[in-house]
Amino acid sequence: MSLIKETIDKISPLSQEARDKAKARLDQLTMPHWALGRLMDLAVDMAGMTGQSPPPVERKTIVTMAGDHKVTEEGVSLYPAEVTPQMIGNFVNGGAGVNALSSLTGARVVVVDMGVNADLSAMGDTIIHKKIGMGAANIAKGPAMSREDAVKSIEAGIEIATDLADSTDVFGAGDMGIGNTTPSSSIIAAITGSDPGDITGRGTGLDDDQLKHKVEVIRTILKVNKPDLSDGVDILAKLGGFEIGGIAGLMLGAASMRKPILIDGFISTAGALIAKTIEPKSQDYMISSHLSVEPGHSQMLKALGANPLLDMNMRLGEGAGAALALCLVDAASKTLTKIATFEEAAVSQADK
Amino acid sequence: MSLIKETIDKISPLSQEARDKAKARLDQLTMPHWALGRLMDLAVDMAGMTGQSPPPVERKTIVTMAGDHKVTEEGVSLYPAEVTPQMIGNFVNGGAGVNALSSLTGARVVVVDMGVNADLSAMGDTIIHKKIGMGAANIAKGPAMSREDAVKSIEAGIEIATDLADSTDVFGAGDMGIGNTTPSSSIIAAITGSDPGDITGRGTGLDDDQLKHKVEVIRTILKVNKPDLSDGVDILAKLGGFEIGGIAGLMLGAASMRKPILIDGFISTAGALIAKTIEPKSQDYMISSHLSVEPGHSQMLKALGANPLLDMNMRLGEGAGAALALCLVDAASKTLTKIATFEEAAVSQADK
Repeated sequence: MSLIKETIDKISPLSQEARDKAKARLDQLTMPHWALGRLMDLAVDMAGMTGQSPPPVERKTIVTMAGDHKVTEEGVSLYPAEVTPQMIGNFVNGGAGVNALSSLTGARVVVVDMGVNADLSAMGDTIIHKKIGMGAANIAKGPAMSREDAVKSIEAGIEIATDLADSTDVFGAGDMGIGNTTPSSSIIAAITGSDPGDITGRGTGLDDDQLKHKVEVIRTILKVNKPDLSDGVDILAKLGGFEIGGIAGLMLGAASMRKPILIDGFISTAGALIAKTIEPKSQDYMISSHLSVEPGHSQMLKALGANPLLDMNMRLGEGAGAALALCLVDAASKTLTKIATFEEAAVSQADK
Repeated sequence: MSLIKETIDKISPLSQEARDKAKARLDQLTMPHWALGRLMDLAVDMAGMTGQSPPPVERKTIVTMAGDHKVTEEGVSLYPAEVTPQMIGNFVNGGAGVNALSSLTGARVVVVDMGVNADLSAMGDTIIHKKIGMGAANIAKGPAMSREDAVKSIEAGIEIATDLADSTDVFGAGDMGIGNTTPSSSIIAAITGSDPGDITGRGTGLDDDQLKHKVEVIRTILKVNKPDLSDGVDILAKLGGFEIGGIAGLMLGAASMRKPILIDGFISTAGALIAKTIEPKSQDYMISSHLSVEPGHSQMLKALGANPLLDMNMRLGEGAGAALALCLVDAASKTLTKIATFEEAAVSQADK
């Protein structure tokens, strides 16, 4: 049996028992009923995911998946592709946005070479090496990768989830890859049937003419590649990137082990949609961190049925939004562990 | 010269120099320009407030101002007034929502008796004693307090800000007081001319009939009390509560010492509007934490020109929203202190 099949077979429904246990405690806290709103909803959801109330949240891992994209040949990004390996160095040295925001909750940042167009073997064990190829092919001219490589990239994500599970209570999924808003926009346009003009954004800072050009490139990509929308692996093979496959695999893997996983921004959500297409149940284990500035992101989250926790005008990727949302995960946990009930605190209840 | 006058005379404009210094660093960070969006805006704002870049944020104090309201005689709250002192005990014992969320960032919670209808002298130095009276009078029948007591409550808030300033980098302003959404709704209805039906909420959990009754009570309050809308002290005296005055004073005091202060939810924003009416410059030092479920809150924030950081369906008060938003204050600070510039990290910049 393939690793993907084996993994999705292990994804169970949420634990209603743990959800009920969490809710029963939260109903009794010394405050007007459910006065901490979405923090309490999140606490209940995480109880359901983990099967435990309170859910464990102590050990947090942001996995930042990196890959390159030869579609940058079409002039869809302002940054040269050399930035991908340079930023990996920055992550490892702790100098990037995701590192700064992970320090808020003590989350660990793990960087994966899924398909960077540079030899990173000299980086040794400072990163995880899962390179499937030297960047995804130019999707304006054909598929991103073979079906076999699409399967491999998802399996690599599953393996990482499995390897990190023993030291992780909550995952976050991030990305790094110059040019990767273009495959992500293509994925959302294909899945929702949206016009590329409505869901394509400025990525790392395109001007009006550059944006117009990027929209045309995405129209071309959709004409050249016609993925089978019922087949997540095919969508990934046609439109994806290796890091997007890695993220999808990480999400399937996390779900199979009952670990909550925070979706970051636009690229991470494209990975989540691939995972959901492969196995809808995986969605129950995903938490949407924030609404990105990228115009297609709200459509993506709608397709995923997810309601983002934060709206901070962010568009960094890397897992930075997931790292910030981990503060809210900690806050949700504390509603279950740090607040007294009416009985414990001898406070009078509402007159019903 | 009165303490209020003396305090507002000390409120300076934001430091453009510190804002520029923060912006210059953020412009150079290893990421697409301003990719951390509102966190970066907040970092610049706090630099302007404190006159320092990076702004100090280490020492955080949430001040929870407590007071009672005899308007509860009109049946506007589900909870008995005895809950106010019971909850003060809960704050002191660390068992309330504000304590749990303050623990996320190591913020201290300081509780003040501004006008609780119970003798709290036995609590000694576990709380700050500034009692102006045994609860505000029933505003459905006349003013909440004398003009003299309104001045006293604002001055008490200023004194607390001054006393805590040496050990505080960032303040948060919270409230506790059974019945205090009614004066707050009355304040926002008076200031914006909104119909009470549009801005009155369920407070701690009223049903439809109870809500309808509360709206009628607020109509009566506005007929009985006709505050001079150009005079913040008069608005407080006619419609307020002692804790709302304390919050207004805390905000004026914080602003006078260049300390950022987080507004919490509905009641705290009523205090902020009183402070702004007394001295518009004070507004520059306020940060809006979150959008409350109370329907009048968005109108209040509009009147204040504030854009809340979070929208979590919360309606607790206590300073809990401010405590949660302190995570974002820490995050904003880290954008200035923990992220490498392109030059520092030797990462290539965008092709412009």
